Amino acid sequence: MKTYDYAYRPLLAVDCTIFGFRDGKLNLLLVRRDIEPRRGKWSLMGGFLQANESLDEAAARVLEQRTGLKEVYLEQFKAFGEVDRDEAERTISVGYYALVDQEKAQLQLSTEFAAHWVPITDVPPLIFDHNEMVAAALNRLRHRATHEPVGFELLPEKFTLTQLQSLYEAIFGTSIDAGNFRRRLRKMEYLQRLNEKDTNSSRKGAWYYRFVPEDYAHAKRNGADFLLKP
Amino acid sequence: MKTYDYAYRPLLAVDCTIFGFRDGKLNLLLVRRDIEPRRGKWSLMGGFLQANESLDEAAARVLEQRTGLKEVYLEQFKAFGEVDRDEAERTISVGYYALVDQEKAQLQLSTEFAAHWVPITDVPPLIFDHNEMVAAALNRLRHRATHEPVGFELLPEKFTLTQLQSLYEAIFGTSIDAGNFRRRLRKMEYLQRLNEKDTNSSRKGAWYYRFVPEDYAHAKRNGADFLLKP
Repeated sequence: MKTYDYAYRPLLAVDCTIFGFRDGKLNLLLVRRDIEPRRGKWSLMGGFLQANESLDEAAARVLEQRTGLKEVYLEQFKAFGEVDRDEAERTISVGYYALVDQEKAQLQLSTEFAAHWVPITDVPPLIFDHNEMVAAALNRLRHRATHEPVGFELLPEKFTLTQLQSLYEAIFGTSIDAGNFRRRLRKMEYLQRLNEKDTNSSRKGAWYYRFVPEDYAHAKRNGADFLLKP
Repeated sequence: MKTYDYAYRPLLAVDCTIFGFRDGKLNLLLVRRDIEPRRGKWSLMGGFLQANESLDEAAARVLEQRTGLKEVYLEQFKAFGEVDRDEAERTISVGYYALVDQEKAQLQLSTEFAAHWVPITDVPPLIFDHNEMVAAALNRLRHRATHEPVGFELLPEKFTLTQLQSLYEAIFGTSIDAGNFRRRLRKMEYLQRLNEKDTNSSRKGAWYYRFVPEDYAHAKRNGADFLLKP
């Protein structure tokens, strides 16, 4: 006969899947553990929930303590609760993903931790169920980036349309037909063309754009649906 | 100075938002608590995670113990972790929603608990943050029903297109243009028309349909996107 235990208390962690984008690649910020018994093993950035903080606050705190990053896009996507996910002790982990501007993040990154950017196409075996977390986070990101303008969090303030397309190619792991993609972008009144060109990649240069949140909010109130995918 | 507590262990609950559909109404299965200090207060069905079960298993167990319902659609949608969400003791709750065939559920429902179907438009104040959970569950359901054929879980095995439309009207709380809606349904090869009519609502009768999961899987492999909304 089973007994029902009112006093059973597992540990409660939060783990952050941190996405960045650079040189056409979607990357993950991973840490190489430096204490036994997991020395040399790769993992996501995580920590235990504390008494005085909500889950969201715990995720933001872990992110800041472990990376130095503050005020970045952070979204809860799933709680992981298999019985044997951590062989040492039962731990429930609430998964969050973060989207950061990798160039800017690089400057803020604390050197205290052995954090490394690793291409999403080349993620090593991670401890616990962290590979499963990454897969679920990427799924959520793909979905979110299709229906909401969150992808811009991964780009610098000003970007070219080629960069934007290359971001979506990296997120979805597929190539994109430029014609169709540009047509969809042209309908987005909240993409503001700046009076400035990127002349690094061609002599003619490519216009810089920026995403204008207030214009997007306005368009949304008027019934516009963000929809962008390969 | 803050200290970091490795041994902090909140309670961990799962709560189920149970949706049903009947007579054109989207309903929630709620319970009226019968023990002090919350006697007479309304709440979702919940319980504490046990040592030998995953989160998903806990949600299925709670659902079965509290309602008698088995093998229903159950999806985790969010973990709720505000510090003061339960004034008695810190409890993290992982929210699941269930979709049940209300006619069938009625027969299975255990009479041991004071469970009541309440229209989603008429939900009473619930304990803790359960009203917020319901809102988040409904959001997820709206989203899911738009992009995946989960709505059929709320209908009987065979249904008319009028019932299907009325389900979507209830889920989204809005009326739907029949012409456009029917046009979209006609493209769904996985909706099989049966050789049988519902003659309750009109003399001419309305064809019964059923959703064929295998045909949907096939259509999906061939690139079909389910998309259905008001």
